[in-house]
Amino acid sequence: MTFSRCDLRALFFDVFGTLVDWRTGVAREAEAHLKPRGYALDWLVFADAWRTEYDPAMEEIRSGRMAFTKLDILHRRMLERILPRFGIADVTEDVLRSLNRAWHRLDGWPDVTSGLARLGRHFLLAPVSNGNISLLADLARRNNLRFDAILGAEIAGDYKPKPRVYLAATEALDLAPSQCMMVCAASHSRDLASAAALGLGTASVARPDEFGARTAVSVPETPVDIAADSLHDLADKLGA
Amino acid sequence: MTFSRCDLRALFFDVFGTLVDWRTGVAREAEAHLKPRGYALDWLVFADAWRTEYDPAMEEIRSGRMAFTKLDILHRRMLERILPRFGIADVTEDVLRSLNRAWHRLDGWPDVTSGLARLGRHFLLAPVSNGNISLLADLARRNNLRFDAILGAEIAGDYKPKPRVYLAATEALDLAPSQCMMVCAASHSRDLASAAALGLGTASVARPDEFGARTAVSVPETPVDIAADSLHDLADKLGA
Repeated sequence: MTFSRCDLRALFFDVFGTLVDWRTGVAREAEAHLKPRGYALDWLVFADAWRTEYDPAMEEIRSGRMAFTKLDILHRRMLERILPRFGIADVTEDVLRSLNRAWHRLDGWPDVTSGLARLGRHFLLAPVSNGNISLLADLARRNNLRFDAILGAEIAGDYKPKPRVYLAATEALDLAPSQCMMVCAASHSRDLASAAALGLGTASVARPDEFGARTAVSVPETPVDIAADSLHDLADKLGA
Repeated sequence: MTFSRCDLRALFFDVFGTLVDWRTGVAREAEAHLKPRGYALDWLVFADAWRTEYDPAMEEIRSGRMAFTKLDILHRRMLERILPRFGIADVTEDVLRSLNRAWHRLDGWPDVTSGLARLGRHFLLAPVSNGNISLLADLARRNNLRFDAILGAEIAGDYKPKPRVYLAATEALDLAPSQCMMVCAASHSRDLASAAALGLGTASVARPDEFGARTAVSVPETPVDIAADSLHDLADKLGA
């Protein structure tokens, strides 16, 4: 490991699952949009189904089979793919458009707002997420997260864990990879491993509830520089 | 004019001259770096000379003669072009590198920090500047400016007043041009006119001292939706 805490200048954050609870948020939004239209579903199952389409959609871009397309548009395609499976057929364009923006209206885990405020006194902070800029700006506003810049997929024109996404973020801040640390939920091994392979520092945050109560690992399967329980624990371990 | 105040969602800011005082800041930094090495210059003349190289450097990119290159790198080339004119020949690489980052260490005009805080309660805020992301993030940190995203040249891969820069900013926030307003110093007619031609709202801010005490126009030569004296006056006029 070439990472040294003394050189650390910037923290990069994965967002879905690491900073915000996408599962209960999407379920809540789906219920709010579809229940008034007479649908009764297990809304968490609906959220999981939507999210399950995520990686295949990313892979179309990462493989080069499809030109870069921002996540809002991919979310909409993913949504249209799952609707028939739930027997949802007669929803207006306005409702679909609003439902698709469920991903802009997610709540942070309880430690996130205060944890980022604390980390931000010592380091540059940026999301390095597959989310598009408007989505991340909306999540930041909603949860009072102060970032120095919004980096990630839309800046890089590709999706994590492709190396270009991490490197575009380091370059945007004029920093070497070793001056940056990627922070991800502990179960996001692929994201952490890709960042580590490029020379970024890595930190995991236990997010055991991302996929349902206590179902996700709290300790990563890939080596990391810091394994933390929360952003406050991360701040403690960084001496921040 | 298609601009309607009711639809307005985002304010885009020019930065050099509009939010920050580049001239006295660059002069101060040049003196701090070069006076200890025995140079005695008119530091404001030095700042003006450096800035005079700006538009020709932009034009190399805008014309397509040179691939997109971020402003930090162009600033360095501009600096190397003017050094011989001032008889500066024996400065180390470390000093030049630090001096080049003078543009990261500029101070906001007195109304900027509080004015943006006030406007930010009502609108999304983003710099749409020719400055690169790291430069703008540093200026925001230094002056406590809270932006929702850093947009502009590095996102667009081109320089203002090329249309692509404004349109990339509106697209990044998923907004129509008419939902966005470009805010520039009153003397920056070309920036304001380009934004207006694309359907963005426009606001000028009087910055009479940008090029020296009371030498710049306070009222733009091109039609704008709002002509303001300061960001607080702009907030008043937007009902914010």
